[in-house]
Amino acid sequence: MPTISSKGLSMPQSPIRKLVPFAEKAIKQGNEVLHLNIGQPDIKTPQVALDAIKDIDRNVIEYSHSAGLASYRNKLADYYKSVGIDVDSDEILVTTGGSEALIFGFLSCFNPGDEIIIPEPFYANYNGFANIAGINIVPVTAKIENGFALPEIEDFEKLITSKTKGIVICNPGNPTGYLYSKEDLNELKEIIAKHDLYLFADEVYREFCYDGNSPFSVMNLEGIDQNVVLIDSVSKRYSMCGARIGALVCRNKELIATALKFAQARLSPPTLAQIASEAALDTPQSYFDDVIEEYVERRDIMVDGLNEIPGVFCPKPKGAFYCVAKFPVDSTEKFCQWLLEEFNHNGQTVMMAPASGFYATKGLGQNEARIAYVLEKESLREAVACLRAALEVYPGRIKIEESTETHSA
Amino acid sequence: MPTISSKGLSMPQSPIRKLVPFAEKAIKQGNEVLHLNIGQPDIKTPQVALDAIKDIDRNVIEYSHSAGLASYRNKLADYYKSVGIDVDSDEILVTTGGSEALIFGFLSCFNPGDEIIIPEPFYANYNGFANIAGINIVPVTAKIENGFALPEIEDFEKLITSKTKGIVICNPGNPTGYLYSKEDLNELKEIIAKHDLYLFADEVYREFCYDGNSPFSVMNLEGIDQNVVLIDSVSKRYSMCGARIGALVCRNKELIATALKFAQARLSPPTLAQIASEAALDTPQSYFDDVIEEYVERRDIMVDGLNEIPGVFCPKPKGAFYCVAKFPVDSTEKFCQWLLEEFNHNGQTVMMAPASGFYATKGLGQNEARIAYVLEKESLREAVACLRAALEVYPGRIKIEESTETHSA
Repeated sequence: MPTISSKGLSMPQSPIRKLVPFAEKAIKQGNEVLHLNIGQPDIKTPQVALDAIKDIDRNVIEYSHSAGLASYRNKLADYYKSVGIDVDSDEILVTTGGSEALIFGFLSCFNPGDEIIIPEPFYANYNGFANIAGINIVPVTAKIENGFALPEIEDFEKLITSKTKGIVICNPGNPTGYLYSKEDLNELKEIIAKHDLYLFADEVYREFCYDGNSPFSVMNLEGIDQNVVLIDSVSKRYSMCGARIGALVCRNKELIATALKFAQARLSPPTLAQIASEAALDTPQSYFDDVIEEYVERRDIMVDGLNEIPGVFCPKPKGAFYCVAKFPVDSTEKFCQWLLEEFNHNGQTVMMAPASGFYATKGLGQNEARIAYVLEKESLREAVACLRAALEVYPGRIKIEESTETHSA
Repeated sequence: MPTISSKGLSMPQSPIRKLVPFAEKAIKQGNEVLHLNIGQPDIKTPQVALDAIKDIDRNVIEYSHSAGLASYRNKLADYYKSVGIDVDSDEILVTTGGSEALIFGFLSCFNPGDEIIIPEPFYANYNGFANIAGINIVPVTAKIENGFALPEIEDFEKLITSKTKGIVICNPGNPTGYLYSKEDLNELKEIIAKHDLYLFADEVYREFCYDGNSPFSVMNLEGIDQNVVLIDSVSKRYSMCGARIGALVCRNKELIATALKFAQARLSPPTLAQIASEAALDTPQSYFDDVIEEYVERRDIMVDGLNEIPGVFCPKPKGAFYCVAKFPVDSTEKFCQWLLEEFNHNGQTVMMAPASGFYATKGLGQNEARIAYVLEKESLREAVACLRAALEVYPGRIKIEESTETHSA
C-alpha cells in the first residue's frame, strides 16, 4: 500500500468538527443538541440573493473569468468604496470562499519553511492553510484577562527572525470577537514596514461591529500598500456560508497577478454563487441593522449569562459572533465531550468548540471554549441554563479559588 | 516591497488563456473570433439541473458537510454503480471541481520533490496542481503519429526512480481525445503494482465515448484498490463547468480520511451547485444520446476537415471533445497569435490553444495545437475554412515536404 504524504499526516483535523460523533450519540440518546460550536448563522440569506438564484436566466452554467465575473468585481469595488476602502476591480480576485483566498495568498507570498506570526487564539483553519503552503505559524499570545487585546508590539518584535515573512490577523476576530482599533493597527503597521512583511487581514466580519464601534480596515493603513492583503467572504455578511464566495483584495499588482495564476489553474469560482453574491450587494441597510440588533441581544444573553455562572469568565466581544469563555473545569476537551456523552438538562445539551484547537502554543486554552452565538435567543438562554447546571455536577470541575489562581497565572 | 514566493514565480500561466489579449484585439478590429481554445461546451445544461436551481427552497444558504451533501453522495454512489463502478458513498469526497480533487489528492499522496509520470501532451493545469504540491512531473511522450496511444510500458519503466510516487492519466484524454482500452490499463496496472505507485485517473469525459467504444474505469482494475484515485467532475458531463463540483473517489480509507482533512479546512463545497449536481443525476439518457450524436458530427466536421487541408494531420479521437492537430507552420504559438492579430477570413478568425503548453518536454508540440470542438457545426465548418485560407497566406508556413519530414522525425 502506498504511503500518505507528510502534509497529509500533519494536516490538522478540524477542532470544530471532531466532537461530531459524540453529538450524534447525544441525539441518538434522545437529547437536543444546542450547537454553539460552529459559525453557521441561522439568519436568513437576503431575499435579493435568494431571488437572483430563483430567477436565474441561463441555459448553460458556464465558467466565469478566473478572477470572477466582471460585473461582480465591478460592483464589489463599489461596495468597498462604500465602506471606505478605495480599490479598483482589478485589485479584486474573486475566490472560492475566504479559504481559497488565504491559500492562494499564502502560496503566492511565502516559501516552505517561512514563518508567519498570528495572535492566538486564532481561527483554527489557518493551521490547515499554513500546512498546505508548508509554512510555520509562530503564535503571539493574546490573553483572556485582557479581553484578547492585541499583544504588545514588543511581543511581536521578539518573535521576528530571518524566516518571518508575514503577520496574519482576523478583525473583528474569530474566535475572540475582539475588534482592533485604528491605533492597534497603526502599531502593527510600524513593524510591517520595518521588516517589510506581508500583512494578511481576514476582515470577513466587518459588518458585525457592536456598541457603536466601526471597523478600521488594513487597506487604509498608509505607506504599506504593497504589503497588505485583505481576505474577504460573503459567508457571514449575507449568511450564505454555502455559497463559497470570497475575495483576495490587494493593491500589489505583482501579487494579484501571481494569485491569478493559481486561480487560472482551478479555472473559475462557482458561477451560481457569484450571481447570488452579486445580487446580495443590493441588500438594504435595514437587513444589517436588524441582524446587528439581533446579535447584540444574543451576545448579551450569552456573555452576561456566562459571566453570572460562578467561576466562568467571558470577555465581552465588540464584533463578530463568537466569544471565548473560561470554565472552572480540568479540560474543556473533556468537558465538551462529557456534555454530549453523559449530560442533559431537561433533555438538552450543549456543543462547544474546545479552545485548545485555536491556540498554537501547546497547553494554552485548555479550560477555555469557543462559543458561536448564532442561535435564537431562547435557545441561547437554554444553553446558559444547561451550562450552569452542568458545571454543578461535572466530575472534572475545579474549585473556583483554583480556577482564579489559574486565571492569574 | 516584499517578494513573491518561488511557487508563485514558477506557477505556469494558463496556455489556454494567454492569447486572450490578442483575441480582444481581434474583436476590437471588428472580427468574429471562433473559440476553439477552451473546453466550455455550448451544450445546454440539463433542464432538471436548471429547474432544481430555480425551485430552490431554502432560506439560508448553509455550509454542507465538508465531504459534500449526504443526499448527493448517496445518489452519486448509485450513479457510479450504474456505470459499473462499485463504490459506497463514504468512498466519495465531493470537491470544488475536479481541480480541487486533484489538489487534495496530490497533497495527500505526495511529498515535495516526489515525481509523478504523466503521458504528454496532458491537461496543462496538471502543471499548476503539481506546482502547488511541490512535486515534479516527469513526462512520457505519446506520439501524434500513433494517434497519441498509451506509450509503451518500457517507456514508463525507464523513467521510474526512487522519487516516483504516481502515474496520472486522463481517460478519455484531454487534449488528445485518446481512449485507453482495458488492455492498456491492465498494462499500466502491472507497473503500478510492481512499484506500489498511486494511479490517478481523470475520467471526467467518461460519457463522451464515440463509435461504439465504452470507457473502462481504473476503479475496475483488480488488485490495486489501495492505489487508485478517481478524479471526476460534473463540468463536462452536464455542461455545467461553472458549477465547480467534482469528486475524489477512492477505496483507500486512509487516503479518503486524509483528503477529508484538507476538505474540512475549506469547510464545504458550494451548496447551490451541489443541489444542481444532485438533480443533474436524473438527466435522462436521451440527453446524452443527443449530445454524443452532436459531438460525433462536430468531430467529423472538424477532424475530417482538418485532414483535408494540405499538410495538416489530426488523429481521430474516440472520446472527449478535443483533438490535437499538427500544422505546417514554424510555430503554433506564432500562428495562433497571427490568426488573432493579423488575419481574418470573411470577418472571422480562429482561436486555438498552442500545444506546446500541453507538453512538459521542451520543444515538443511546437507545430501542434489543441482544438476543442465545442461550437455549433456551422461555426466549425467556418473555422475549418478559415484555417485553410490562413495556411495559404501565413508567412511562417513551411513546405509540406518539410512538414512531413518533421512528422517522421
